[in-house]
Amino acid sequence: MIYTCDSCRFLFSRAAEPEQCPDCGKYTVRKATTQEQREYQVRLQGGLAEPAVKEKAKENPYDNPAFFTKYAQMDRSRQGLSAAGEWHALEPLLPPFAGQRVLDLGCGYGWHCRYAADHGAAQVIGTDISRRMLQTAAERNAGEVIEYRCAAMEELSFPNGSFDIVLSSLALHYVYDFAPLVERISRWLRPDGTFLFSVEHPVFTACGSQDWEYDGEGQIRHFPVDRYYSEGSREAVFLGERITKYHRTLTTYLETLLRCGFVLRHVVEPQPPEEMLDLPGMRDELRRPMMLIVSAVRS
Amino acid sequence: MIYTCDSCRFLFSRAAEPEQCPDCGKYTVRKATTQEQREYQVRLQGGLAEPAVKEKAKENPYDNPAFFTKYAQMDRSRQGLSAAGEWHALEPLLPPFAGQRVLDLGCGYGWHCRYAADHGAAQVIGTDISRRMLQTAAERNAGEVIEYRCAAMEELSFPNGSFDIVLSSLALHYVYDFAPLVERISRWLRPDGTFLFSVEHPVFTACGSQDWEYDGEGQIRHFPVDRYYSEGSREAVFLGERITKYHRTLTTYLETLLRCGFVLRHVVEPQPPEEMLDLPGMRDELRRPMMLIVSAVRS
Repeated sequence: MIYTCDSCRFLFSRAAEPEQCPDCGKYTVRKATTQEQREYQVRLQGGLAEPAVKEKAKENPYDNPAFFTKYAQMDRSRQGLSAAGEWHALEPLLPPFAGQRVLDLGCGYGWHCRYAADHGAAQVIGTDISRRMLQTAAERNAGEVIEYRCAAMEELSFPNGSFDIVLSSLALHYVYDFAPLVERISRWLRPDGTFLFSVEHPVFTACGSQDWEYDGEGQIRHFPVDRYYSEGSREAVFLGERITKYHRTLTTYLETLLRCGFVLRHVVEPQPPEEMLDLPGMRDELRRPMMLIVSAVRS
Repeated sequence: MIYTCDSCRFLFSRAAEPEQCPDCGKYTVRKATTQEQREYQVRLQGGLAEPAVKEKAKENPYDNPAFFTKYAQMDRSRQGLSAAGEWHALEPLLPPFAGQRVLDLGCGYGWHCRYAADHGAAQVIGTDISRRMLQTAAERNAGEVIEYRCAAMEELSFPNGSFDIVLSSLALHYVYDFAPLVERISRWLRPDGTFLFSVEHPVFTACGSQDWEYDGEGQIRHFPVDRYYSEGSREAVFLGERITKYHRTLTTYLETLLRCGFVLRHVVEPQPPEEMLDLPGMRDELRRPMMLIVSAVRS
């Protein structure tokens, strides 16, 4: 559905009408008129839709040297896929890569690009907004069929049907507006192509702080959920740095995919695997969902 | 996936391996052997699967006179569908009823049965475990094509392909084990038949108390989530009465449907409609999801 804001005239798409304008924050959102919907479509075709989005969307904490250094210390950064708590749930959902053309949106260090290449992909394009991440990718996960491109995923452009598989690991919650991106991904994929992504779970992103509720003695009491239906930016602290992410409801994630012609194959909230449960804090990961993995096929 | 418990030998199906046995509560769950899986299938065919389930599943607080009286005072009980906060989200997802054979599981007062009949359904069977609820249904929502049956939905049996549409409104969270029921619903439906249901949202059922976290002055701080991956019974207080519901993850709801051959059409977390926001407490319903609506089609 296309909405607009009577205060700032921002024109945008959402699964459900938000209370506040995602651009100016005022409570003056209404459904777009037929004329405005047409204007939105024209802008979308010309790559001009939602200009405000493009400025906001370029969240790039990974080029902040302090953040980058701390990120590099994480197990998943040092040891790769097998050290990521969700990998055991993600890997079985991956389609066969042999001979396939693969796009990885927000590829970071390029672990998934390398995995695709190692499993026979014909072509892999990994994109990321962070030059620092891509430098590491080029050093650690280079490959003959892999090309790394520095770009915000909101600004990418490919001919229709360019890819058989589009991946994105824990990057789409940095994207301000999901629907226009999914519409483009749907065009980039061939029919029956796979779109597989992980994001931070809406339960995890709703409140904003992404931290537990503690008792007076510093023990975890539970995880707080609030502002669930108020989609938009959230300021969290990750690795000691302030970072902006975008909260969306589960409804928005799934209904956007369905509306764009995707068939849902899997919707999985990964739990940490048995063998990781003794790592510090890992048992608490059974108390609330932190990630969401979705596998969908373009119809 | 079929699991068993080494302590009590309970044999059951789940989307993912639970930590605790849902029957005896011990941490001795493991994957079933091929032999045990075959035994499970045999029991399933014979209607004998998961005998422990049948006892536990017959949650029937609605025949408790105190509960029943309070339930009768709720807006949704007195005024019907239009007074239910989720109806504005559910109604647009309903398939055309004209000429269709409809089953409503946990039909309560029969509002949805009546709606289906009023919209041209050829046959409507409404089932509920509560005699009191069905008495009210017969008084208020009778119809020539409507038949009400008193039964636990876990014990129902119909020939394959008996229905075009299976509905269930806010009843499946009283069911102990989801997978065997979905398997049966899938058989009861003709190909391309619709299964549409609402349940309490996993965010709402996870912790158990189903109550907000308050500050010292009685103001809502947030909604607590805990024990998310620990599926099973939860004791909540609803209308002042203790009541047992069953928490399941979103993963279990959706992956069970996909595994049973359903194609997901809609996954919607309904928000209260604009015109209800001034009702007491309704604005707080924007702070966390309380319900989940799923529409799926048998492939």
